[in-house]
Amino acid sequence: MPPFGLLHMRAWASLFGQLLRPRRAVFIREVRVHSQVAEAVLTSQLKPHQEKSHFVIKTPKGTRDLSPQQMVVREKILDMVIGCFKRHGAKRIDTPAFELKETLTEKYGEDSGLIYDLKDQGGELLSLRYDLTVPFARYLAMNKVKKMKRYHVGKVWRRESPTIVQGRYREFCQCDFDIAGQFDPMIPDAECLKIMCEILSGLELGDFIIKTSWKDVRHEMVVKKGLAPEVADRIGDYVQCHGGVSLIEQMFQDPRLCQNKQAREGLGDLKLLFEYLTLFGIAEKISFDLSLARGLDYYTGVIYEAVLLQTPAQAEESSNVGSVAAGGRYDGLVGMFDPKGYKVPCVGLSIGVERIFSIVEQRMKTFGQKIRTTETQVFVATPQKNFLHERLKLIAELWDAGIKAELLYKNNPKLLTQLHYCEDMGIPLVVIIGEQEMKEGIIKLRLVASREEVAIKRENLVAEIQKRLSES
Amino acid sequence: MPPFGLLHMRAWASLFGQLLRPRRAVFIREVRVHSQVAEAVLTSQLKPHQEKSHFVIKTPKGTRDLSPQQMVVREKILDMVIGCFKRHGAKRIDTPAFELKETLTEKYGEDSGLIYDLKDQGGELLSLRYDLTVPFARYLAMNKVKKMKRYHVGKVWRRESPTIVQGRYREFCQCDFDIAGQFDPMIPDAECLKIMCEILSGLELGDFIIKTSWKDVRHEMVVKKGLAPEVADRIGDYVQCHGGVSLIEQMFQDPRLCQNKQAREGLGDLKLLFEYLTLFGIAEKISFDLSLARGLDYYTGVIYEAVLLQTPAQAEESSNVGSVAAGGRYDGLVGMFDPKGYKVPCVGLSIGVERIFSIVEQRMKTFGQKIRTTETQVFVATPQKNFLHERLKLIAELWDAGIKAELLYKNNPKLLTQLHYCEDMGIPLVVIIGEQEMKEGIIKLRLVASREEVAIKRENLVAEIQKRLSES
Repeated sequence: MPPFGLLHMRAWASLFGQLLRPRRAVFIREVRVHSQVAEAVLTSQLKPHQEKSHFVIKTPKGTRDLSPQQMVVREKILDMVIGCFKRHGAKRIDTPAFELKETLTEKYGEDSGLIYDLKDQGGELLSLRYDLTVPFARYLAMNKVKKMKRYHVGKVWRRESPTIVQGRYREFCQCDFDIAGQFDPMIPDAECLKIMCEILSGLELGDFIIKTSWKDVRHEMVVKKGLAPEVADRIGDYVQCHGGVSLIEQMFQDPRLCQNKQAREGLGDLKLLFEYLTLFGIAEKISFDLSLARGLDYYTGVIYEAVLLQTPAQAEESSNVGSVAAGGRYDGLVGMFDPKGYKVPCVGLSIGVERIFSIVEQRMKTFGQKIRTTETQVFVATPQKNFLHERLKLIAELWDAGIKAELLYKNNPKLLTQLHYCEDMGIPLVVIIGEQEMKEGIIKLRLVASREEVAIKRENLVAEIQKRLSES
Repeated sequence: MPPFGLLHMRAWASLFGQLLRPRRAVFIREVRVHSQVAEAVLTSQLKPHQEKSHFVIKTPKGTRDLSPQQMVVREKILDMVIGCFKRHGAKRIDTPAFELKETLTEKYGEDSGLIYDLKDQGGELLSLRYDLTVPFARYLAMNKVKKMKRYHVGKVWRRESPTIVQGRYREFCQCDFDIAGQFDPMIPDAECLKIMCEILSGLELGDFIIKTSWKDVRHEMVVKKGLAPEVADRIGDYVQCHGGVSLIEQMFQDPRLCQNKQAREGLGDLKLLFEYLTLFGIAEKISFDLSLARGLDYYTGVIYEAVLLQTPAQAEESSNVGSVAAGGRYDGLVGMFDPKGYKVPCVGLSIGVERIFSIVEQRMKTFGQKIRTTETQVFVATPQKNFLHERLKLIAELWDAGIKAELLYKNNPKLLTQLHYCEDMGIPLVVIIGEQEMKEGIIKLRLVASREEVAIKRENLVAEIQKRLSES
């Protein structure tokens, strides 16, 4: 693929230059502790006859904290994903973490049991959102919006049996892009697939393939027709086939497969889709695959899912993460919320950022390099005792000039402690103030990487720092 | 105050140049609708004997969606707040939206009744987080972190009686900065106040004052001593006083106020705090005020709260939003989670971004200017019929070069419709492709603001667009 999002790719390269350091083991292990307060609560209020008098300090099952290192990686990945959504002209919205329980009802089929309900504390019955798609459809219907290209980044919650090893959590972040509105066929659908390709290429996760199918075609051909013995074998052949334009062309020509109107129309649209994908330069990344099914009830028409292709070495590491992005068309969902059943056709995609984080974390472990978790540019140090007042005055000047600066919160820190802190934290510059220099109207600037020190006129300090930072 | 965070201030100025447009009324009104699906659910499953057969499509009480216009404002404000936190060397963490119920128990005093509990669906008892402070303390204790300067931006939930007019919601965003660790007295406390000043000045919300008090001093002097008749009047005087260094000095010298050791030490530390605030150049923004109280149980030592001062005109508009930032010291909270009661002293602040959004929205209403909700740079148009393929090929080239581009999802849109779209959306450039130009190997670039059109060699298109975008 030609290079796109050059800035993003460069950012990614520079990210990898810094961020690779093993995950802190501390965030994996559960720390079991005993708390007097908790004990009091457990024994007196919550569970009056509880025998065990201690509880575990932990995050809820299937959830986790993100450490500063993890947050740096997450934010870089989200920046790239959001950058792509913006490149395609999307607006951002937000919706509440919970919805009226009835808003979510009958949207998820078998998965409905995985919805988190809130306790009835009086008032409305509420549930945590299960995805960002149903809230978007509710938003469109409620505000009578007929046309919108939007993205949404937020957490969703599912009461799944968590198998954290595979990167599945009960709380996870979703990044959704959707196009709502009545348009000429397959143009928005093709753009969604283009976006998936751009994001997966841009993140440099390795080779990938996007499998597409067509819910109605699949239903007609596999579920309904599959029961008729005379075409069963024929269908079986197609289900096992993966392919692009030529496969669709072949199916389209097959009279036995085209006798059903809905299936025939679906195949016609798929042909059109592959034409557009070819113009977008991504046809070779997309494979038509009737074996693909998506669990959610609301899909209609085209559905798709991206999977990473593994090298044999990766497969051996058992870092199998499966689907990293998915989506499809859901033309009926908004109508379920409209009083007159007015439909707003929609197509969209969701990036499985949680899985992508897992892959990148795995890499970090492998490479074992250091990540900077702060952006501090200058450290204010002194070798002198009783110099806190001067340090505070100076650092305020730096902050007020927009410079990212830190000092140690001690009255009389040792110089070596201060310099070690800078090396540990990767802070590039140190301003060193002392009594003698102050009398002479100068100040020392130390470059942490080279340990070089230069004397600077006190009044030029801010300008000199800004110059050096803009050059680096 | 001297200018700080120049880039941020410039960003803010440019924000105000664009973002002022009346809020879409559509997000305020509740749309009442009737849904057949919901009816089926209501009558069959949820409430079998329900008489009313329709429900309201809405967000839960006290919550709201954010429109693209609101998201633009919110993101600009969050960028500035986060920029300040980074300027002070903070790392970012994240924690789950819900915690074990017992983690939140006995931390919020009277406010505990406002915690949202999750329904018991088997497994752990869970509650939505009420603030970001208790999860931070849990994080420190769980990971045995003794020292950390972190920020956290996320939603919290409180079952308050919502009075949305005042900008109070049941779901709202918090931006917290905290310094954990054992340090020399009052240095981190002073930095927290400095950060509050930088953010409130940087957001240009108008004049503000930060009121500080001291929980222990207040307790000793107001609650305990207030009962002793012989000092009641004396205390009453101080409670009514607001002031800086000189007031504290005066109280410090008053033997009747200093007979209690804890109160005396508190006053000594307050004196030190005001010294540091003077060095930071913000002493005149801070007022000592014993009438200040903060509801939460966990505070110890210094507490503070920032309020906007209103011009008479603003007060008339009744845009009273009260406190916009608050915080304080909580030295005991982490110890409540530690098995051995090991304490990690903490001090921090929380920015009331929800109130700040309300103020900015109010201004938007007043100014009535337009906000761009997308960042699209180039629109791909044609006056020609049957030119979809050429448009798709061209736009893919732009996307792949990292250019933010859109087209209409129609086979044969009218040129006027396409140009109107660009003017509506504020897209600065239009690429216009036609058959004749294609034959000649050129392409037209239209500058939307001036309606000027220039012919460009086809092969130079991307470079020319990038040049013009970097200049603008």
